[in-house]
Amino acid sequence: MARILYDLCASDSLRLSPYCWRVKFSLAHKNLAFKTIPVGFTEKYKLKFSGQNLVPVLDDGGTVIHDSWEIVDYLEDTYPNAPKLFPGAEGRLLAKLTAEWINDKHKELLSFFVLDILNKLDLKDQKYFRKSREERYGIRLEDLQEGRENRIREFRKVKLAPLRAHLTDRQFISGREPAYGDFAIFGTFQWARLVSNFDLLEQGDPIHDWRERMINRLY
Amino acid sequence: MARILYDLCASDSLRLSPYCWRVKFSLAHKNLAFKTIPVGFTEKYKLKFSGQNLVPVLDDGGTVIHDSWEIVDYLEDTYPNAPKLFPGAEGRLLAKLTAEWINDKHKELLSFFVLDILNKLDLKDQKYFRKSREERYGIRLEDLQEGRENRIREFRKVKLAPLRAHLTDRQFISGREPAYGDFAIFGTFQWARLVSNFDLLEQGDPIHDWRERMINRLY
Repeated sequence: MARILYDLCASDSLRLSPYCWRVKFSLAHKNLAFKTIPVGFTEKYKLKFSGQNLVPVLDDGGTVIHDSWEIVDYLEDTYPNAPKLFPGAEGRLLAKLTAEWINDKHKELLSFFVLDILNKLDLKDQKYFRKSREERYGIRLEDLQEGRENRIREFRKVKLAPLRAHLTDRQFISGREPAYGDFAIFGTFQWARLVSNFDLLEQGDPIHDWRERMINRLY
Repeated sequence: MARILYDLCASDSLRLSPYCWRVKFSLAHKNLAFKTIPVGFTEKYKLKFSGQNLVPVLDDGGTVIHDSWEIVDYLEDTYPNAPKLFPGAEGRLLAKLTAEWINDKHKELLSFFVLDILNKLDLKDQKYFRKSREERYGIRLEDLQEGRENRIREFRKVKLAPLRAHLTDRQFISGREPAYGDFAIFGTFQWARLVSNFDLLEQGDPIHDWRERMINRLY
């Protein structure tokens, strides 16, 4: 039976969700073939069968799972002989905490390119995106992005410090080879670089070099 | 030279800061002798020499460090032959993300026993504690604690799920022996159990059993 991922997309087939990217990288890592069904911001009716309205949703031959963590947790347990998403004794906890670590920075990350996302959308999606995000965060999108050139320096230096320290003496977050810890964070950088030319990372930063390695592996 | 930790205390020498507990457990783990200087809520002047006003502060024979993570990071690098705080290849990142994971739950944790803390303080500290916390969180302490009997069930089930999954098949967060990942989270449970009879954990929960093992090791 087919394996189908419901994947958030913008007007021009641009795939937009960092959480969907995590799942796509994980499926590829495990060598599991899949097709995607694009879901626009205003097409959430396509997800109704899953009992909720958020992407990603995976239909794995009739088994329906939503939430990126629940999906990769399921994939790791269902396909134990495929390459591991959570290698090592503490792998599952490290992967989960890595994902939660970057999840908790979602609003701040969004603040660096929210208007760039807006400009990628068609008019109908722009209206939905602005209304839903301004209600969620209680701030106008223009005010959310205000001062990004100054804010990014502090974000790089302070907020990304633990990731930088970790990557100073290894190739990937998960060790010698990428695994879910890498996909969780790269999903976010993938989202950022597809919608915006405002770079979250500087040349010379070990995180920048890691991102290059991930791009070379995955694209 | 002496090794001195500046340690938050309440009126009756009750040591109150989860972040100070992390450092005390870490010093003990590394077999590093130390003395503490108690610092009351309204005695922050004692920390002025450190250039800021938050505990914990460690004076390690003249080297002054503040912030619990900075202190343990320093201890691990300065005393590499003592038992490891960050064992394993991904140990430092796992420890850091574990600490940030529980840090991000500080307000919610506080909401389960904030009035119990208040009742442990003398009148002067009560006044300081109420004013500073009500300003920080924008809510009256009584409202913050409201409905804790119902809220704790969801907290245990959902928020603690990744820790529970990890502890299902191992003795300690860091593996066979406790290390900083354990101290970071146990510091928080230590803070909770010293100030309140409202138990964050239920009998039969693997996290409860882990906490018992930590208590038996450290107390």
